[in-house]
Amino acid sequence: MVNFAELQAFPEFSTEENLQECFNYVLDLVKKGGEVIVEGFTKTKLVKTKEFAADLVTEYDQKVEDIIIEGIRVKYPNHKFIAEESAAKNPLGHQPTWIIDPIDGTTNFVHSNPLIAISVALAVDKKLLMAICFNPMHSELYTAVKGRGAYLNGDRIHCSPTTELKHSVIAVEVSIAWVERFRDDVIGRTLALSSKAIGIRSLGTIVLTLCYVARGSIDAYQMEYLQPWDIAAGALLIQEAGGIVQNHRGGPYDIMEAKVLVAGTQELYDEMLAVNRECEGKTITFT
Amino acid sequence: MVNFAELQAFPEFSTEENLQECFNYVLDLVKKGGEVIVEGFTKTKLVKTKEFAADLVTEYDQKVEDIIIEGIRVKYPNHKFIAEESAAKNPLGHQPTWIIDPIDGTTNFVHSNPLIAISVALAVDKKLLMAICFNPMHSELYTAVKGRGAYLNGDRIHCSPTTELKHSVIAVEVSIAWVERFRDDVIGRTLALSSKAIGIRSLGTIVLTLCYVARGSIDAYQMEYLQPWDIAAGALLIQEAGGIVQNHRGGPYDIMEAKVLVAGTQELYDEMLAVNRECEGKTITFT
Repeated sequence: MVNFAELQAFPEFSTEENLQECFNYVLDLVKKGGEVIVEGFTKTKLVKTKEFAADLVTEYDQKVEDIIIEGIRVKYPNHKFIAEESAAKNPLGHQPTWIIDPIDGTTNFVHSNPLIAISVALAVDKKLLMAICFNPMHSELYTAVKGRGAYLNGDRIHCSPTTELKHSVIAVEVSIAWVERFRDDVIGRTLALSSKAIGIRSLGTIVLTLCYVARGSIDAYQMEYLQPWDIAAGALLIQEAGGIVQNHRGGPYDIMEAKVLVAGTQELYDEMLAVNRECEGKTITFT
Repeated sequence: MVNFAELQAFPEFSTEENLQECFNYVLDLVKKGGEVIVEGFTKTKLVKTKEFAADLVTEYDQKVEDIIIEGIRVKYPNHKFIAEESAAKNPLGHQPTWIIDPIDGTTNFVHSNPLIAISVALAVDKKLLMAICFNPMHSELYTAVKGRGAYLNGDRIHCSPTTELKHSVIAVEVSIAWVERFRDDVIGRTLALSSKAIGIRSLGTIVLTLCYVARGSIDAYQMEYLQPWDIAAGALLIQEAGGIVQNHRGGPYDIMEAKVLVAGTQELYDEMLAVNRECEGKTITFT
């Protein structure tokens, strides 16, 4: 349930009508961002690299972010932003704060791979209130409002009820092993999981993978080397779809820390934690 | 170019009109199969396992295969079939032979994961003549006729022009490491590729991954432990999209062997081959 009593300091969310107005307003901005992505999808992109050579950014990332942030600023001038391209360093305060990834899966986007998503979450008083994720290439719109369930194109979705790793499909971002200091951990865990789970998936988009967990298509997923905008919207979607969102050591999920282990059930979460413990401190060799 | 002179023994392909009639007829059957998949997508499935516990089959696999095979038999009673669920052991002869995977990515399908595809290829005189792959969940129809290019929903597609592994996204089916005798090879190669390529993907569907190579979304892909229906249609799509389809040792692709290494360019294919040689005979340990 949305606790309107807690939201009285923020008139824009203090009634059902105002909350819905805000949700619909931002949803329209996300859809406009989606049009930009569809338009740019098959075009040659101007690509820059960020910290790592595998971390790409295009002019479309900036365009989509501008549409969403400028749109929200017009209607809600006191709202704050934590966003990948222009407001990455902002802290999370009590004011309403939009946490935005304009294109998650930029490497996919650059390769004209349709597995991408726009991710927008709203935190109020440091708690997640709304989430909108949109894959415009597959017309998949994932939405959630705190306490009201998660939806895909308007249909209620639920996390997978699977309780055992041996019946599970697990997502791992194998690509992160590109960074040498993460390699043992990622490939080692992938090796361990490959003999325990029924399948391993790497989609190259964190946001869409979290959405796939929320819809029950993937049973569990772990990522540790992330930014807040990679996770926030997907975290609320999974919670509202009945799943578990905690960190990779069994502690609570912290919006700004963005290290998560998510699973459809507590039992599967616990089994994933046990795999982490088993893998900890080990080194992988291939000779 | 379709060489109609070579096809005179088969009246159903001996003129442009007849060839097109056959293509359209089978395309309709594939679309009917797609309707069955969409209908069953979110339903609870009766799941059986095959040789390996991770090799699943549902009643929908059989239904889709029956629609396609029975439909073709009515119009082309002398055609042969090599198909996953009902005609797996048939050899490939000179007669027109349809090579069919009714649902590739059955584990995805069972998990209501939309990354799945129907795959249908036609071989005449042991050479691939037509390919139709269809992901009904994302309305993606991939088609090719020998010599006429590859298409996605009617738009011409091309493999990626990337020539260097360091700019490439590579697909690896990490799940195959579930089988112990393949583990060193698959995880070792993934480890080697993760430090050389810009990204690693595992979609859990061989057919759709090959289609993604044909559309340029993935630069290269290797699979060795396959069946003819996993590859045939995707192989023609990639060839018609300008890519390289050979085996994983640099030799020719054999429709019935179905061990392939595919890439958008010869240069990238060669670099992938070099990684294979580097990895050969090595053992992976994690201690």
